[in-house]
Amino acid sequence: MRRIITLTTDFGLFDPYVGIMKGVILGIAPEAVLVDITHDVPAQDVVAGALALEAVCEFFPAGTIHVAVVDPGVGSGRAAVAVETEFCYFVGPDNGLFTAALARALLSRAVRLTNPAYHRRPVSATFHGRDIFAPVAAHLAAGAAFETLGDPLTELVTLDLPRPVARADSLELHVVHVDRFGNLITDLTADSFILDFGRARLHIGGREIVGISRTYADAAQGQPVACFGSSGRLEIGVRDGSAAETLRAGTGTILLLRNEG
Amino acid sequence: MRRIITLTTDFGLFDPYVGIMKGVILGIAPEAVLVDITHDVPAQDVVAGALALEAVCEFFPAGTIHVAVVDPGVGSGRAAVAVETEFCYFVGPDNGLFTAALARALLSRAVRLTNPAYHRRPVSATFHGRDIFAPVAAHLAAGAAFETLGDPLTELVTLDLPRPVARADSLELHVVHVDRFGNLITDLTADSFILDFGRARLHIGGREIVGISRTYADAAQGQPVACFGSSGRLEIGVRDGSAAETLRAGTGTILLLRNEG
Amino acid sequence: MRRIITLTTDFGLFDPYVGIMKGVILGIAPEAVLVDITHDVPAQDVVAGALALEAVCEFFPAGTIHVAVVDPGVGSGRAAVAVETEFCYFVGPDNGLFTAALARALLSRAVRLTNPAYHRRPVSATFHGRDIFAPVAAHLAAGAAFETLGDPLTELVTLDLPRPVARADSLELHVVHVDRFGNLITDLTADSFILDFGRARLHIGGREIVGISRTYADAAQGQPVACFGSSGRLEIGVRDGSAAETLRAGTGTILLLRNEG
Repeated sequence: MRRIITLTTDFGLFDPYVGIMKGVILGIAPEAVLVDITHDVPAQDVVAGALALEAVCEFFPAGTIHVAVVDPGVGSGRAAVAVETEFCYFVGPDNGLFTAALARALLSRAVRLTNPAYHRRPVSATFHGRDIFAPVAAHLAAGAAFETLGDPLTELVTLDLPRPVARADSLELHVVHVDRFGNLITDLTADSFILDFGRARLHIGGREIVGISRTYADAAQGQPVACFGSSGRLEIGVRDGSAAETLRAGTGTILLLRNEG
Repeated sequence: MRRIITLTTDFGLFDPYVGIMKGVILGIAPEAVLVDITHDVPAQDVVAGALALEAVCEFFPAGTIHVAVVDPGVGSGRAAVAVETEFCYFVGPDNGLFTAALARALLSRAVRLTNPAYHRRPVSATFHGRDIFAPVAAHLAAGAAFETLGDPLTELVTLDLPRPVARADSLELHVVHVDRFGNLITDLTADSFILDFGRARLHIGGREIVGISRTYADAAQGQPVACFGSSGRLEIGVRDGSAAETLRAGTGTILLLRNEG
Repeated sequence: MRRIITLTTDFGLFDPYVGIMKGVILGIAPEAVLVDITHDVPAQDVVAGALALEAVCEFFPAGTIHVAVVDPGVGSGRAAVAVETEFCYFVGPDNGLFTAALARALLSRAVRLTNPAYHRRPVSATFHGRDIFAPVAAHLAAGAAFETLGDPLTELVTLDLPRPVARADSLELHVVHVDRFGNLITDLTADSFILDFGRARLHIGGREIVGISRTYADAAQGQPVACFGSSGRLEIGVRDGSAAETLRAGTGTILLLRNEG
């Protein structure tokens, strides 16, 4: 069976770091199928990396191994970990990168990557992507048993992810990501609240959006529109335009959601 | 046989959309070979997407499946289609994305993607790349018969692509693409007109280019030069420089081609 | 066996050139595993391409074929070459692109790519990546014997790469690359000089860096720190910041390395 290994990093594609990780993986697991999720996570932005992983992992087949390296703490004492869920594997630093993705899993167990037999030697102080995470993922793809990767770990570092805050008369939402089209993706997921789509009112940047639509195409040209996007999150878009520009909003911008009286 | 599926989108690689499509494809067709053409088509620029597809498809082996998603009309009534030529397949929205590539094919037949057995359920209103195009391409790669994908379609939406216009004393050409090196690629293809290379004169941005050369290397440093490039189209380049900068030209710039008296 | 073919170019991913090369390769060697190193080498910057190749090639399994196209001289008289070392292959223009990588090999032999049986026909004057390098690499991956690719070549063009210069009281180093994190990578390799880490003093941009550290994490926040990075080269970084910005440095910036008295 050809195992899939996905890669999510903040390395960019200008530097050779991603190519090096692929070389290391293919040297150990020549049959592995490599898939780039993104290498454009903003440098050292663990929250953005966590959200990228959360967005993709449910769409990959069972057994997929997700390697993620957004690792401001490399060379310090942070642990290197692998996590197994009922569906897939994660390999990377123990800094909360997997918090969002794991919130969707029913079961999981984790190990600290302490077995040097699965590492490159010597392990550098600066590039664990190459020396630990890539070879561990490759050995896992090539058939190594999960529990041989290292010592059991009962608690992972968790990340404080943005989430809606209940206010007296409204729900405070937050933009967690702005996509290439200028759509604003918020921290409100479709399954977290019961919403009356027709009565909902969104306030952002001094403007009001009336109701939640089924799709961006329902809006008039140039007008902001709210809908639950393909990510399962409430998004604000502008048909044939950029909501980020129209509403001068970005990651961290606050939205207020109210029900009309 | 490992079928090739190429991907051409305007999704960029910063967002998780391309990774999601790959996960969906590999879940259905684990043996498929995925090749990215580009994900940097300018947002919602169907003409640019059409020209990218045209540029690449003849270089892929027979049976390749080209998935393209530049889809400003997603969620509106536009059809989702698959097209089969004597050589390859196209899967995407019926908005003219395949017009340029299909102009090179002798035969083709098309279906509207109406068979829900090949779609993800439920189909979202905003991301047909994930819910329709990726799974349909994957099923095709995995052996589904073309005619089972949906209802026959006898006419596709066609795109009004830039093409040369005959003027009284000249041929009006248009820049259709500026590549990374600043080369200007025009809408004049090598096989569309009989040209006397030595007598040709090109007028662009107040300058005249004398004759059509065999290669950019024939030009003096810093001087604009015209030649038929690797795309089979007339291109304007500047040796060791950028024609776009030197001539202050971009997509849509007009050139006049004359034969010297 | 599935042979790995890596691609390193200055084509970017906006234009279709890389996709075209992949189509050509897969048409000849359908089992080849394609790995992108980078396509963001600055346009026509052969030194940057050479350093990218040097950085990655030791991490790929034996037999890997590295295709590189940074080729300002395409269409002029420069030769097209393939090189075999005890470990891997290189295919590309004979303009010094492989100088740095080959400096690490014990043995190598080279051929000029003169056998037209392994080229596309006709060979264009502008895109040898498609017409010569991609098909030659694919034929090599598919089993062609190295010596059948063309005539033996006893000398390759070599590139004048930056290297440390001994001054009266110091060693003059040079920044050869600035990575995505703003780290400055120099031309001093770990094995080229014997250094007393504690006594070393680096002078750059009017500042002094005292000692060479084991990792960026050893530094105080915002302070520049020198260490031998994952590349085996002396690097200057700033913890949680950009050394390029802090020190106003870039490719070509000079550093002076002294031993404290």
